[in-house]
Amino acid sequence: MRYSQLFGKTLKSAPAEAESANAKYLIQGGFVDQEMAGVYTWLPLGLRVLRKVEQIVREEMDALGAQEIFMPSLQPKEYWVTTNRWEGVDILFKLNSQTGKEYALGCTHEEVVTPLAQKFTKSYKELPFAVYQINTKFRDELRAKSGVLRGREFRMKDMYSFHTNQEDLTAFYNRALEAYVKAYTRCGLQVKVVQASGGIFTQNVSHEFQALTDAGEDILIACPNCEFGQNSEVATLKVGEACPKCQGTLAQMKGVEVGNIFDLGTKYTDAFDFTFTAEDGTQKRVLMGCYGIGTTRLVGSIVETHHDERGIVWPKSVAPFQVHLVSLRSKDAAVQATIDQTASDVYDGLMRAGIEVVWDDRADLSPGQKFADADLLGMPLRLVVSEKTLAENAVEWKARTSAEARRVPIAEIIEEVGTFVRE
Amino acid sequence: MRYSQLFGKTLKSAPAEAESANAKYLIQGGFVDQEMAGVYTWLPLGLRVLRKVEQIVREEMDALGAQEIFMPSLQPKEYWVTTNRWEGVDILFKLNSQTGKEYALGCTHEEVVTPLAQKFTKSYKELPFAVYQINTKFRDELRAKSGVLRGREFRMKDMYSFHTNQEDLTAFYNRALEAYVKAYTRCGLQVKVVQASGGIFTQNVSHEFQALTDAGEDILIACPNCEFGQNSEVATLKVGEACPKCQGTLAQMKGVEVGNIFDLGTKYTDAFDFTFTAEDGTQKRVLMGCYGIGTTRLVGSIVETHHDERGIVWPKSVAPFQVHLVSLRSKDAAVQATIDQTASDVYDGLMRAGIEVVWDDRADLSPGQKFADADLLGMPLRLVVSEKTLAENAVEWKARTSAEARRVPIAEIIEEVGTFVRE
Repeated sequence: MRYSQLFGKTLKSAPAEAESANAKYLIQGGFVDQEMAGVYTWLPLGLRVLRKVEQIVREEMDALGAQEIFMPSLQPKEYWVTTNRWEGVDILFKLNSQTGKEYALGCTHEEVVTPLAQKFTKSYKELPFAVYQINTKFRDELRAKSGVLRGREFRMKDMYSFHTNQEDLTAFYNRALEAYVKAYTRCGLQVKVVQASGGIFTQNVSHEFQALTDAGEDILIACPNCEFGQNSEVATLKVGEACPKCQGTLAQMKGVEVGNIFDLGTKYTDAFDFTFTAEDGTQKRVLMGCYGIGTTRLVGSIVETHHDERGIVWPKSVAPFQVHLVSLRSKDAAVQATIDQTASDVYDGLMRAGIEVVWDDRADLSPGQKFADADLLGMPLRLVVSEKTLAENAVEWKARTSAEARRVPIAEIIEEVGTFVRE
Repeated sequence: MRYSQLFGKTLKSAPAEAESANAKYLIQGGFVDQEMAGVYTWLPLGLRVLRKVEQIVREEMDALGAQEIFMPSLQPKEYWVTTNRWEGVDILFKLNSQTGKEYALGCTHEEVVTPLAQKFTKSYKELPFAVYQINTKFRDELRAKSGVLRGREFRMKDMYSFHTNQEDLTAFYNRALEAYVKAYTRCGLQVKVVQASGGIFTQNVSHEFQALTDAGEDILIACPNCEFGQNSEVATLKVGEACPKCQGTLAQMKGVEVGNIFDLGTKYTDAFDFTFTAEDGTQKRVLMGCYGIGTTRLVGSIVETHHDERGIVWPKSVAPFQVHLVSLRSKDAAVQATIDQTASDVYDGLMRAGIEVVWDDRADLSPGQKFADADLLGMPLRLVVSEKTLAENAVEWKARTSAEARRVPIAEIIEEVGTFVRE
């Protein structure tokens, strides 16, 4: 992608009201645009990140054997009355149709997936199974805040599993927990797994996943050596005590919540009278689990945990482009032509090698402006072609995570970048 | 995919109220589930088709140089008041938030994309450009009908282009028109391009795309040799007259509308006072085009145009799987073991070759039931492993479009299927 052609460029400054790192850098970098409080458009750069995050989550859900579906946001009022949540959930948007009917606008999908699963499940032979979707969710938040961390409209992966007995549900629940940790790790996040109460969803066991960051709102008592953590508000253990899982020494940490999983038991299958014919011919109640990751929130959390004072530092796995190529200006027209040709050759070579590259080909910006934009946008590798580098038949190479720049011969650049991207 | 594991299997019969081929076969085949009138869940099989259709559309928009973004469904009332459509559009869902604010729920996105483009466009140097999204849309239809053809909630690709002058807009508009024809053709649809009035969008030039089908609601006067067509309601030409584009003889045809494109002129840029600084330093009004394809409607239209009395006949480009492998039962346990092993080998071989295959491995169904399901589901190629075919060291081969079956030696099957899939 030539940066000059990109829709949604960097802004000169962050919006004054941006109170969090993710809001500041995602908006200033042209990753997202705030339509109104808690509601964002994902611009081309941001959408590339969101897609990669969602693909990682999708792959981990597929690896669990879960099947992807796509459920409606418009949901019948009757279903929400059935589960006794039409009146109980204050963040539920309600719609009046000109047909005279009322609908809920999905903030979650138990009310859709439970009757759906019920239609296709008669016997123990059809159990267990899990389905998931990656879809937009709506929440009528009184106060939207923290950039894309808590929005009125956001993207979420929600999975639902169905089982004949508690042992089977627990086994899947534990596998899902491990899949979540794997997905976060692939996104560059270090998480602690915290046992939590279920809120509006359940009275049963549930866990939340906390990505460690100094900007986190939640205080944890957690183990530095394993994934164990407790929320300080309900912690039974103290700083300095031994981790019950690995005997490490518990410490205080800050985290931002990036997902929840719930053992729902029969909460929803009771409401819909969802039974199956067991092996002995009797009718039994189906057991259910649900598993959520906010994918837009995940992008925000990655920014919270991967930035410095100059901008974002994307992990390779979710960076919109791996390489940020910068060509500088020369006052000498002949040199300028050589710079342009060399940058164009490197750009084409990287593209042919299947490497994602954005080329800042703008003619009217100073080196300082271009470098500041490269730091703000946060691609893992910055390459610079200039009069100075050409004098050495080289390209300047600087990883976003490093303070040091070095020169790489032009003849070797494609291969070296290939190695960098894969390592 | 083993069919026994698939969530969302075929139903014994089509729902009584299914009035159209797409509703009948998509529901009976387990591609979609109707949550309520005009609102569907896309089950794993249907989602595979929808994804392929959306990817084809995406590729054609990318080839135009348009950039993908993702805009919110929650839209500020102020923007709809600005364009004078808050009161005028009867299918617009309106939301009351507990914050006291009102939102529109997006049935289209001119009210979002115009101020968004305006934020990033100051000068003629930043024009022209085009952005698009593939997103869910909501319409408060009084009567939803025709399966996934006209829903209250549906998926759509909507593109918006921005220009400095009419010549540039017209040139892009014509390129978009050709990209649309290409996308439809890739989806297996034969379309006519019909000049139309703009409805609530515009008074300017617009075109609609009509996929030919006997089930179509619209009567066309169209050319059998080229893409020219007129809607019979406003036709200026008659059956038997010469096509103004290619001199072919116009005939009456039936079509279903699968997309629209609009030259919006300054309708929305006037409302938002969206100007740019021209080369001569003056402020001029930006011109705009919009271009829509309903992707779920497109899936429905493919079913309307590609089915017979037994079920769907998917074009290869959008089939959920290319191969439907069927293993039959034998009363002889040793033969049964050989059938299962052979089917498993063929299944694994096809998967290793990167060929999409669904294997009907169910043990408790008759050959007739399995063949009926294969016809209903409509994969391009059916392969059968049975006692009879094994006696010839062969697999039965039948294309969905052919009445004839033949035998292919097991040793050659992977390569032959590879050729079939690619041709």
